[in-house]
Amino acid sequence: MSAFFDAHAGLLKAAVEAARTRGYWSAYPEVPSGKIYGESAKADGEAAFRDLLGKPFPLDQRAEAQVGAESSPYGFALGITYPSVPAAALVVASEQARPGWARASVEDRVGVALEILARLNRQSFLIANAVQHTSGQAFMMAFQAGGPHAQDRGLEAVAYAYDEMARIPGAVTWTKPAGKVSLVLDKSFRIVPRGTALVIGCATFPTWNSYPGLFASLVTGNSVIVKPHPGAILPLAITVRIAREVLREAGFDENVVQLAPDTAEAPITKDLVLHPRVAIIDFTGSPAFGEWVRENARGKQVYTEEAGVNSIVLDSTDDFRGLTGNIAFSLSLYTGQMCTAPQNIFVPRDGIETPEGRKSFDEVAEGLKTAIDRLLGDPERAAAVLGAVQSEATLERVAAAATRGRVIRRAERVAIPGFEGARAITPLLVAVEAADEPVYTVECFGPIAYLVATESTEDSIRRAAETARAKGAITASLYTTRDAVAAAAEDAFAAAGVALSINLTGQVFVNQSAAFSDYHVSGGNPAGNASLTDTAFVANRFRVATVRRQAAA
Amino acid sequence: MSAFFDAHAGLLKAAVEAARTRGYWSAYPEVPSGKIYGESAKADGEAAFRDLLGKPFPLDQRAEAQVGAESSPYGFALGITYPSVPAAALVVASEQARPGWARASVEDRVGVALEILARLNRQSFLIANAVQHTSGQAFMMAFQAGGPHAQDRGLEAVAYAYDEMARIPGAVTWTKPAGKVSLVLDKSFRIVPRGTALVIGCATFPTWNSYPGLFASLVTGNSVIVKPHPGAILPLAITVRIAREVLREAGFDENVVQLAPDTAEAPITKDLVLHPRVAIIDFTGSPAFGEWVRENARGKQVYTEEAGVNSIVLDSTDDFRGLTGNIAFSLSLYTGQMCTAPQNIFVPRDGIETPEGRKSFDEVAEGLKTAIDRLLGDPERAAAVLGAVQSEATLERVAAAATRGRVIRRAERVAIPGFEGARAITPLLVAVEAADEPVYTVECFGPIAYLVATESTEDSIRRAAETARAKGAITASLYTTRDAVAAAAEDAFAAAGVALSINLTGQVFVNQSAAFSDYHVSGGNPAGNASLTDTAFVANRFRVATVRRQAAA
Repeated sequence: MSAFFDAHAGLLKAAVEAARTRGYWSAYPEVPSGKIYGESAKADGEAAFRDLLGKPFPLDQRAEAQVGAESSPYGFALGITYPSVPAAALVVASEQARPGWARASVEDRVGVALEILARLNRQSFLIANAVQHTSGQAFMMAFQAGGPHAQDRGLEAVAYAYDEMARIPGAVTWTKPAGKVSLVLDKSFRIVPRGTALVIGCATFPTWNSYPGLFASLVTGNSVIVKPHPGAILPLAITVRIAREVLREAGFDENVVQLAPDTAEAPITKDLVLHPRVAIIDFTGSPAFGEWVRENARGKQVYTEEAGVNSIVLDSTDDFRGLTGNIAFSLSLYTGQMCTAPQNIFVPRDGIETPEGRKSFDEVAEGLKTAIDRLLGDPERAAAVLGAVQSEATLERVAAAATRGRVIRRAERVAIPGFEGARAITPLLVAVEAADEPVYTVECFGPIAYLVATESTEDSIRRAAETARAKGAITASLYTTRDAVAAAAEDAFAAAGVALSINLTGQVFVNQSAAFSDYHVSGGNPAGNASLTDTAFVANRFRVATVRRQAAA
Repeated sequence: MSAFFDAHAGLLKAAVEAARTRGYWSAYPEVPSGKIYGESAKADGEAAFRDLLGKPFPLDQRAEAQVGAESSPYGFALGITYPSVPAAALVVASEQARPGWARASVEDRVGVALEILARLNRQSFLIANAVQHTSGQAFMMAFQAGGPHAQDRGLEAVAYAYDEMARIPGAVTWTKPAGKVSLVLDKSFRIVPRGTALVIGCATFPTWNSYPGLFASLVTGNSVIVKPHPGAILPLAITVRIAREVLREAGFDENVVQLAPDTAEAPITKDLVLHPRVAIIDFTGSPAFGEWVRENARGKQVYTEEAGVNSIVLDSTDDFRGLTGNIAFSLSLYTGQMCTAPQNIFVPRDGIETPEGRKSFDEVAEGLKTAIDRLLGDPERAAAVLGAVQSEATLERVAAAATRGRVIRRAERVAIPGFEGARAITPLLVAVEAADEPVYTVECFGPIAYLVATESTEDSIRRAAETARAKGAITASLYTTRDAVAAAAEDAFAAAGVALSINLTGQVFVNQSAAFSDYHVSGGNPAGNASLTDTAFVANRFRVATVRRQAAA
């Protein structure tokens, strides 16, 4: 079994080091290149995806029924069904599978996890298709965020958990001087998992957001039930199938990892959350359901990423075109459906300083509109940047938002070549006043951006930070040429638990969060109680049991 | 300010190393010797204690009233009062004091904590008197557990928190290759505290159980409100006074640490727990109030040590006299008022194997009775081992327990030389049947031990582990000469989250938990949700805020 650990030990060591130094590092290539993944990998991945459509998904799990009702945001039903049993039966199987897994060495468990990640990486093209046609992400993003970047996030969790477990010595001799003699105890320390762990996935980033909790719980000895969003089962079904395959090869009960598929009509998430033997819950999703989970999972370890109201504060810039281009991309990427996408852009009522002189509020608005037009003017590029809208409800939210202020740029339908039924739109840009707090201090998921006219930059920072503190926020962005403004913003957003990006005018975007360097979600405001990944995310998924034996002095 | 850090850096380094290697290590000498602490230290400490009696405690905190109604279990009222303001005012002062403390460097904060510990150590004799005359502990135990051992536990928490914070780099450059150019970000990471931290102390170990949470919250940048048990304020008042003195010398607002005294008649703990700005709670106390805290502190970081039902399983021994002597001491030490003291002694109905042949259940019972008689036969030794009973309620509990089975040894009043009014008794030993679960599977705090007659050792282990899982347990003890029995017990107690001691027949006792080696409470059963000290105890007391700045490629 430890062959898996030995095979990946070098990678693990590099990952542990990367998590400490937090510069740029990645284990899995993000370029969907035939040279890296094999010349036929792209075609093979797409063929494998097509081959799964319209039939039961091959997963060797006990089934009382087949369920599944996924449909692609690009306009067709997947027609795939998955084996389903009630929540209680999943938990029984999980409890039965765990003891052998919990008894295995840290190295054996970590080796299995690393082999799962390696095989997931080899299936990145299949996973890209699965993510594209459940989340609506454009192919390139589905490949990167759904494949190698998600795998990096999984590896990061493995590295943190391994590092933490490795700090606990297996056995020590305790020798206490006591006058002429010594008191001697032989002690051993054993890692004990919490129990059955539940991972609740979301529809927009089914793998990226699920892998950290899945792998953190797994390597610490817990058995894991993976509950995908009913609209994005396939990417996690592929993941679970690979996990079970590796577990079986390594001699473990494959029910250490199980899939819990359901549909919106017959959901099973609450049954799982409420089950007394479920000890750990990782949740990604809406604040409304997140609150229900937190309220009802008392006494359990709960890690959430919910959502928030992300802000951009515009004070001044030495590159107005870079500013507008960068923001236009951040608003457009995956049609604003990233939890890191900006919603509110605070601009002083009397404008901002630029190299071309002071630009008024309206000139800033016009600059952003123009930048979005330019970015999305080419239909092929628009399709590649925007992807499709995951949920019909988002379209309704966009329509409602357009009535809440002065529309700077309307959300327009976009044609996606090759997918006539695709649900694709451009971002909506609406100007509002600082006093319109009921409009802009609530999360409006999707491609909705409010340009908020404020008294001053100080007012902007105060409003952005206060919204983060009250409603949650994952990212903030600031444009300024003044050091004192930057320093004030750093203090304000740090206190509100928000990651701040300053003066992004090039090819790095506030939405992006890189494994091994960026802490995704601080855990310090209502946008989520956990961070991907820090020590707190892994250290409480296991406990230590001590045995002390009296020894001869 | 960093002078404090520099002065103690060697000690900190050794403490971090000790927490990783977990062999024997201690920073503060446990021997109350004049050679170590100064020839007059003992007399000075007692005089300083006497000098505090019967008047307002000198603490420079804002006061609307003076409160306090402590009385020594040795039979006299302390007559000390402490400055009191409502909970809301304490929180306001805490919030105002924190920003400067949160902005300080990790080294500055850790330096202050280490200096506080050093000064606490110098006051160990005063603290010993304060602990003795609030908890009822005999002087030697009050000195060791209340002084150096508590200081070791505090240092351990500082070491873990420092180690964890030191792993997060202050600033890094992130350089991502992107074709011919690179994407470059300058990133900085800032430690952000949770907010106001509340430490709720207990009456039996006011310092030992409070220092870990106090110091862990403090060095991670939180401001701390220390809420002592109304019956044991003085040891924490002395602690808070020293903390404020060091904070002031280092240039910080002394309200970073505040005392929140109250009385049983006008308690303020619930107001503090419910206050929305209180973000962290460390609680030591009863499961009943612990449950209230856990239920009502939702969304806050809560660390509890409550209580449990600790067991001894007797299977076989090669040293029956060592066994009985060791158990007698464990039952008698501080009159069974340790959260680690055994309550249930499981003995097979048909007895256990010993070098003198098989001993029947009754012979085992008689052996334990004899050992207690022997230990406590000398009045001076009895006083030194037993100390006094902290609460009158414990005496009532002992009287009730005596009616629940066949009394093997009655609890008897003990005279403590020099303290005529002392509340001191010997342990009660009662034989019950395995079927009497309603009697012995509930926690009976105090010197109450049940000898439980079981089917077999397997039955004993099963019952002990199941009680631990359902009701909580901190310790378990096993006597066996059979490896298979030891292995089965190790598995069962590990799964139930209980620390197991095997074959203690000498001068180490199951009740004892040593800083830097023993994890006190596993956090894996209802006896408490946290462990002293592991990484999980410190890692979530702060969050990390990131700032990313676009840099030139």
